[in-house]
Amino acid sequence: MPLTIFSNDISTEKQSLSLTETDMPTCGDDDLVVKVHAIGLNPVDYKAARGGLLGTSGISFGWDCSGTVTQAGSNVKDFSVGDAVLFSGDVKRGGCAAEYVAVDARLVAKKPTELSFTEAASFPLVSVTAYEAIAEQMAVTEKSAPSSTLLVINGGGGVGSAAVQLAKHHFGIGTVIATAGRAVTKEWCQRNGADHVLDHHQPLGPQLEALKVQPNLVLCTVDLDGYYDQIVEFISPSGKIVSITLGDSSKIDVGKLFFPKRLTLAIELMFTKPYFGENIASQGEMLRTIASLFATKKLQSIVTVTKSGLTVDNLNEGLDALQAGKMHGKFVVNVIEE
Amino acid sequence: MPLTIFSNDISTEKQSLSLTETDMPTCGDDDLVVKVHAIGLNPVDYKAARGGLLGTSGISFGWDCSGTVTQAGSNVKDFSVGDAVLFSGDVKRGGCAAEYVAVDARLVAKKPTELSFTEAASFPLVSVTAYEAIAEQMAVTEKSAPSSTLLVINGGGGVGSAAVQLAKHHFGIGTVIATAGRAVTKEWCQRNGADHVLDHHQPLGPQLEALKVQPNLVLCTVDLDGYYDQIVEFISPSGKIVSITLGDSSKIDVGKLFFPKRLTLAIELMFTKPYFGENIASQGEMLRTIASLFATKKLQSIVTVTKSGLTVDNLNEGLDALQAGKMHGKFVVNVIEE
Repeated sequence: MPLTIFSNDISTEKQSLSLTETDMPTCGDDDLVVKVHAIGLNPVDYKAARGGLLGTSGISFGWDCSGTVTQAGSNVKDFSVGDAVLFSGDVKRGGCAAEYVAVDARLVAKKPTELSFTEAASFPLVSVTAYEAIAEQMAVTEKSAPSSTLLVINGGGGVGSAAVQLAKHHFGIGTVIATAGRAVTKEWCQRNGADHVLDHHQPLGPQLEALKVQPNLVLCTVDLDGYYDQIVEFISPSGKIVSITLGDSSKIDVGKLFFPKRLTLAIELMFTKPYFGENIASQGEMLRTIASLFATKKLQSIVTVTKSGLTVDNLNEGLDALQAGKMHGKFVVNVIEE
Repeated sequence: MPLTIFSNDISTEKQSLSLTETDMPTCGDDDLVVKVHAIGLNPVDYKAARGGLLGTSGISFGWDCSGTVTQAGSNVKDFSVGDAVLFSGDVKRGGCAAEYVAVDARLVAKKPTELSFTEAASFPLVSVTAYEAIAEQMAVTEKSAPSSTLLVINGGGGVGSAAVQLAKHHFGIGTVIATAGRAVTKEWCQRNGADHVLDHHQPLGPQLEALKVQPNLVLCTVDLDGYYDQIVEFISPSGKIVSITLGDSSKIDVGKLFFPKRLTLAIELMFTKPYFGENIASQGEMLRTIASLFATKKLQSIVTVTKSGLTVDNLNEGLDALQAGKMHGKFVVNVIEE
């Protein structure tokens, strides 16, 4: 019987995790069953494991994975048993902090041989989030990219790191600015391709003025409520604000989007498509594009911490680091030693 | 000395208008001076004339115009004295409820000979608003249009009428749904090309369910706060809400844009570009496209009321009708008899 890590009683202040034997996951007609090699952790995981996302006890979590196909459903054409793959999956289904997991094959890409399983598990969720934010919610096109200026708030985090790299090295956005709080994350953002790095402990408007740049696109990867009033002041007219999390939404006054700037506020949430079963294949396609960018070194590894073994301690260490907001890049747990 | 209509003391409950002699407007290097033939009225006019927009007394208003060029600035290449033109202009400058007005030539299109001056004054503001909403704030493309479903709330109003026609006859949006409240406006929406018309006195969700259609695009042309909670329920995942006015923005909870639908909320305001001097020429280009669609009968007249003479009574009649929310199509005042 394979092992899965579950969240436990979320009514206690700090939930305990448990490593439990479970049945093998069922392989639907459109599914793959995958033997998990590595898991990348994301803020969604501490929210799920510690009660802040789905609000239920005893759920499995972990939605970033690399592994090997052990079973393929009858409708699946593009994958065979033995294929090395990567994906982030579907928040409605069990997560990947487990030895085996089932996933809709349309959400999956093959792992390029140039990438380790560790690296392959580090980028699906954050890269698809950043890709969708830029290509879909900001509607950046080949034509509009060169004249665009993108500000990524918290450029050192998982989504921020992916966004800075994709913006600069794939979408060709003219000016990419990141914010960071520490020397290590400032350097990290520069290494990822940021043209300028702002100190996010200081007001951003004056720093942008000093640089004489005005973003028309802002990707906020931390709670928007803390930045919204600044953003609507410094963003260009007709600008687009995309956020992946809001904080206290009552502090966000949509009136400030209106006269005179005609702004746009969009949410990016990569789980929407799998949740509703809409346009699912687009996420597999994005992952193939992103994987090939890593394979050809256009994008570089965003892994900063690696742990070995599917253990409660390893998972908790990663969740703690994410919850404390002190991570830059990605925390990966190898279920199978590389 | 030419005549201009000004708003008067906005501190009184209902402002009086005055018809006053003024100097000829100055023609800047990028400007045209235009002898006004006709003025189209819009809600922005009663807001400006009656203190709700700019909050100052003694301003001129009216930002929809057709007329004849009497003077052209030294930088102007595309227009000559005597050209018949149409435009909506710039909210920062004096309005067109006047005998002469100056306008940045980049905001102007030539009047096709197939169109009367009355008709030409009826559509600049509403058509550019609808065009920008669909092409820019909803980012509808040739590729995405056929599979899109657009709901236009208050399809019988000025912007609504333009949006229904443009969506159906220019952008090629697959399904266009309008809302209307009276028999006359329902028929009007159908004539403009709406595939379905909903009763906007009833909840919209059940009517959409009965039709088995789910809009992925919603254009709200009345205060959004009254419709927002309905829209976020019935709109498709990844859908886009565009509004031209908000009402009480504290009633709009952006949290509802988030999980699980990843929605977008954008404001459309055609005055943004002239206000900031950004991408001004795009509005002249849109007007040329729109004018040629009218000239070739792809779009049909949206004029429903015409009055003759630049008089306080005529202007007040139009402003009253708009303020009461009882108009469908456009109210045009001819300054010069056709």
